[in-house]
Amino acid sequence: MAVGVEDLPNFYPVAGFAMGVANAGIKQTARPDVCLFAIAEGASVAGVFTQNAFCAAPVQVAKKHLATAPCRYFVVNTGNANAGTGAKGLQAAVNTTHALAQKTSLRAENILPFSTGVIGELLADEKIIAVMDEALANVSEGNFAKAASAIMTTDTRPKGVSRKLSIAGKTVTISGISKGSGMIKPNMATMLGYLATDAKVPQNVLEALVKKAADVSFNAITVDGDTSTNDACMVVATGQGELDYSTLNKEQQSEFEKAITDALIVLAQLIVKDGEGATKFVHVSVSQGPSVEAARKIAFAVAESPLVKTALFASDANWGRILAAVGRAGVDGLNVDSIALSINGVLIAENGGRAESYTEEAGSKAMAEEEIIIDIQLNQGQHKATVYTCDFSHEYVSINADYRS
Amino acid sequence: MAVGVEDLPNFYPVAGFAMGVANAGIKQTARPDVCLFAIAEGASVAGVFTQNAFCAAPVQVAKKHLATAPCRYFVVNTGNANAGTGAKGLQAAVNTTHALAQKTSLRAENILPFSTGVIGELLADEKIIAVMDEALANVSEGNFAKAASAIMTTDTRPKGVSRKLSIAGKTVTISGISKGSGMIKPNMATMLGYLATDAKVPQNVLEALVKKAADVSFNAITVDGDTSTNDACMVVATGQGELDYSTLNKEQQSEFEKAITDALIVLAQLIVKDGEGATKFVHVSVSQGPSVEAARKIAFAVAESPLVKTALFASDANWGRILAAVGRAGVDGLNVDSIALSINGVLIAENGGRAESYTEEAGSKAMAEEEIIIDIQLNQGQHKATVYTCDFSHEYVSINADYRS
Repeated sequence: MAVGVEDLPNFYPVAGFAMGVANAGIKQTARPDVCLFAIAEGASVAGVFTQNAFCAAPVQVAKKHLATAPCRYFVVNTGNANAGTGAKGLQAAVNTTHALAQKTSLRAENILPFSTGVIGELLADEKIIAVMDEALANVSEGNFAKAASAIMTTDTRPKGVSRKLSIAGKTVTISGISKGSGMIKPNMATMLGYLATDAKVPQNVLEALVKKAADVSFNAITVDGDTSTNDACMVVATGQGELDYSTLNKEQQSEFEKAITDALIVLAQLIVKDGEGATKFVHVSVSQGPSVEAARKIAFAVAESPLVKTALFASDANWGRILAAVGRAGVDGLNVDSIALSINGVLIAENGGRAESYTEEAGSKAMAEEEIIIDIQLNQGQHKATVYTCDFSHEYVSINADYRS
Repeated sequence: MAVGVEDLPNFYPVAGFAMGVANAGIKQTARPDVCLFAIAEGASVAGVFTQNAFCAAPVQVAKKHLATAPCRYFVVNTGNANAGTGAKGLQAAVNTTHALAQKTSLRAENILPFSTGVIGELLADEKIIAVMDEALANVSEGNFAKAASAIMTTDTRPKGVSRKLSIAGKTVTISGISKGSGMIKPNMATMLGYLATDAKVPQNVLEALVKKAADVSFNAITVDGDTSTNDACMVVATGQGELDYSTLNKEQQSEFEKAITDALIVLAQLIVKDGEGATKFVHVSVSQGPSVEAARKIAFAVAESPLVKTALFASDANWGRILAAVGRAGVDGLNVDSIALSINGVLIAENGGRAESYTEEAGSKAMAEEEIIIDIQLNQGQHKATVYTCDFSHEYVSINADYRS
């Protein structure tokens, strides 16, 4: 199950960013399971990776290579996460970068590996290497849709975003893809996101921008609080288009940053909407908080509460569960009596109890929607945070209990 | 559903601690829903309460009264939590203490109120007050079993512990009851625990003991990470038996402390075992950690991971999910490669990957048990922590989604 219908957009190609796919037989399907991303020389590349201490071999290699040399290729496989595989797994990841370097006359450090799939099985790197020529042969800037399918694991649909904007009179293109079933099958549901723009952006600016944008996109989604060992989100600025970030004034810079951020938010939201078992897409918005940190803590406590999530599944406006989750979020000095709680615009609770104006009818009507906005006004500051999540259904348990059997 | 068969013990009465019950009609059943606990003059009374900032009216009143005057009565109702009820709810809680004070020639501050049940409905304090005479009339030291039933909400069975020990040649009795369905229905599944001993224990010693014992009992159980607004665990030392704590040597003091702690652990474990939807009882034991805090963090991350819990339901030895939960627990400097993971004595993972000796057969056999011990050796220190939990089943979703409908 997934929330709503989300077709792939018509992708605008990004000059200097191209993709090629092949089927290496890592995943037991006829679908391509290897995707190469070719990045033009001179591009800026920045990324954020999983914070999980138990991080997969490719993540370790990708972080090291990204810090060492200009990035020219991503090599992505699905079907095997190459996590929990010790020294042999590390070698397998390194091997794929060496093989591709040889074929493209680059250094291994110019290549970043990414894997997603089952944990704890050794990666057959020779299978990936065997199809590299085939993938290289079909590398094309027009392959976003093919790439979106090739990186899927248990996703029920491919995910993408594409925008063409005018900033400071210059055209800029932003296109990207993502995968992940909302982390509800993290053995195969690593979140991966790849976004490219043809703008020219200094490396340090892109790094800062990606870090900031990740906080409100890939780091602001949760299905069950579990974090994959393989998560990564990469942003490439090829510099082959009209727009040069360095020539923009403050306002125009903000416009560009907002465009990149919005595209990452779309890619991240698509992952939550495709959470298997998900029947609702939920925004948890916390405003008027004492700090962003406090607002985020509260938003995550609500978004990750199994009790809130099962109530969402049942379309039950169970405000007691929401306020209880707010109360246990661990924010010191929180005055619960000043909180106002609305769901899809219906005021439900205020002053520490049910709102006078509230009726169960109005609450039930609001909760019947497929998209739910839980709006929590703390009334104790100026800071806010939003987290995106889905509900918790019978299917969630079925999927995760039956996954390996 | 609940794990195993757990009948009530034959309770040894505790001199100076007596209970009376009545049916006030707060809960829509024929079962008593009000219980009075009468505590003899001179007893020491200590307790721990929910850390939830959104804490219920009775908790606020109980904490204040406990700090103000010697405690002589608990008044407990089920069916209504008196939480999220604002100023009116606070008044209702205070009213019950005033009424009982008048009937017993005590001060309101000598009485602590406790409520458990639905959140957000006004408490009909007049109904509780109306049956106080009836409850007072049947107060008896032999009423542990009746009290255990009277404090139940969605519990599938009453819960109790009773021990008679000899310490330093003196007989000491420890008896107690608890309620809660593992917090999986927290609107009605507040955890309450009441333990009494006839030993004489100085007030400050009892307070320190209860705080320490709660950390390894009531604060070491989790079903879904949600914390009720009404949780409380009270320990009473009446001083009417043979044993006087002040006369004990260090070793004997430890023996007494262990007896109280063990009784609280039993009461807490009974709550997890009665988690509706629970099919397995799980110990998550983390040892050789850099600190108790780190070990606790990791144990809770594993115990609260929906992915681990659904794998437990499926009897799937999915060690990748367990190690991923360890990795995201937020412990700085954790070396994941040094961790050894066993389940019911079967070594599953070490050195960052699957153990050489491990077979899926051995793993499946270990996971088929009703009681599961997940043993995580960090190999980076001397500290340990254990957390108790249950699995996550289809029934969990059904119960929590259908609860109010």
